Amino acid sequence: MARPEGFMKRYFDYNLALTKEKLRKSAGKDTFISQCVSNIEDIDKAANLLSKRLREWYELYNPELSRATPDHAVFASLITAGTDEKPADSMGSPVSPEDRVAMVNLAKRIADLYTLRKEHEAYLDETMEAFCPNIHALAGTLVGAKLIAQAGTLKRLAELTSSTVQLLGAEKALFRHLTTGARSPKHGIILQHPLLQRAKAADRGKVARALADKISLAARLDFFKGQFMGDTLREELEKRFRQS
Amino acid sequence: MARPEGFMKRYFDYNLALTKEKLRKSAGKDTFISQCVSNIEDIDKAANLLSKRLREWYELYNPELSRATPDHAVFASLITAGTDEKPADSMGSPVSPEDRVAMVNLAKRIADLYTLRKEHEAYLDETMEAFCPNIHALAGTLVGAKLIAQAGTLKRLAELTSSTVQLLGAEKALFRHLTTGARSPKHGIILQHPLLQRAKAADRGKVARALADKISLAARLDFFKGQFMGDTLREELEKRFRQS
Repeated sequence: MARPEGFMKRYFDYNLALTKEKLRKSAGKDTFISQCVSNIEDIDKAANLLSKRLREWYELYNPELSRATPDHAVFASLITAGTDEKPADSMGSPVSPEDRVAMVNLAKRIADLYTLRKEHEAYLDETMEAFCPNIHALAGTLVGAKLIAQAGTLKRLAELTSSTVQLLGAEKALFRHLTTGARSPKHGIILQHPLLQRAKAADRGKVARALADKISLAARLDFFKGQFMGDTLREELEKRFRQS
Repeated sequence: MARPEGFMKRYFDYNLALTKEKLRKSAGKDTFISQCVSNIEDIDKAANLLSKRLREWYELYNPELSRATPDHAVFASLITAGTDEKPADSMGSPVSPEDRVAMVNLAKRIADLYTLRKEHEAYLDETMEAFCPNIHALAGTLVGAKLIAQAGTLKRLAELTSSTVQLLGAEKALFRHLTTGARSPKHGIILQHPLLQRAKAADRGKVARALADKISLAARLDFFKGQFMGDTLREELEKRFRQS
């Protein structure tokens, strides 16, 4: 399209500037929170993929250490630090210095990815504490961020009914329920919350409902810049479901 | 099982030692080559996954740079180096210093993964030059290593007929051909060889057959520690198919 001239040009330029301005304002903190929590999930995927490869490779040389160290992050950092001792009667093959360097380089990058994950979790933690203190205190960093990411924005999350909040992230199971008559899901993302993790299977529905109620309230408090009472909300729930 | 005693114990221990010795010898250079080339593929996957995330995130801040830099590795290193200039009339939102640090940290790890890929390719290059110089010279580092990985060992690769070498890595298409009568595949991994990449579509079958023939010969030369003639083999092919 040829650029217009004269009055039309000024009109066009003004419109363009307005649109750019709107776009600039469209990326709020909730967008960053969504990006960061999805990114943490991707880092996990990448670190897992490379860790499996490292183990398969390293087990040719020293299978005993790999079997004795189930945690991927610990395993990678042992090799990076050079404290990966090989038993005298190991079943592994000897390797050349170059083979070893190649493995250590891989381990180093994996250890770095786990460091990155921690850095991003700390960033997410700070950002949420400032942006949505109630959700942060009640739901925790990761669960809270995933809820915001799933809803899209804090505004959307605040507008959802608490029964929708309860099922956020369980859309697949919900549609299976609606179309095939399978059992309805009791919880989505909030299942990862410590309160639900601790609850007995029979109580999960009840706990999930109560937790979703409070999260829904917390989201409204955060969106409308209400008072801070996330701690109180959490304590109430903890007290109520202590025995379960 | 309780450990046996006396003579049986000596017999048991000797057997155990023998088995360990065999295991130790079972990991030859070809195993390392297979591991390394699979690892390079995994690094690509991981770097791609994280690069897509970085772009989605970074585009909130400076979409223009992301659009102007299609190469993932270059994009990550620009941000890492801090030379990612933002146009004055950018459509991106301003970000807080913490948001920026989080993105730069991610970019740094991605740039590191691309460095790791280069290190591993150099290691693979050296290892193959020493272990299978003919395959290395004729097929190239990555194609050669993938063929060894697909065959399992250099021994297995040397034992395969050249028509099998031609189709290594195209097993899926081959079985589709056998079961449904679809067109038979003309090439597997060797399609990635520069000679085939340059060839016209109509000539690909012919070039693939000739290349597989020579690779099969090169594998036998390498396995039986024959003379080095990988360069000559490659030159012959280059000359023969120059016009195609």
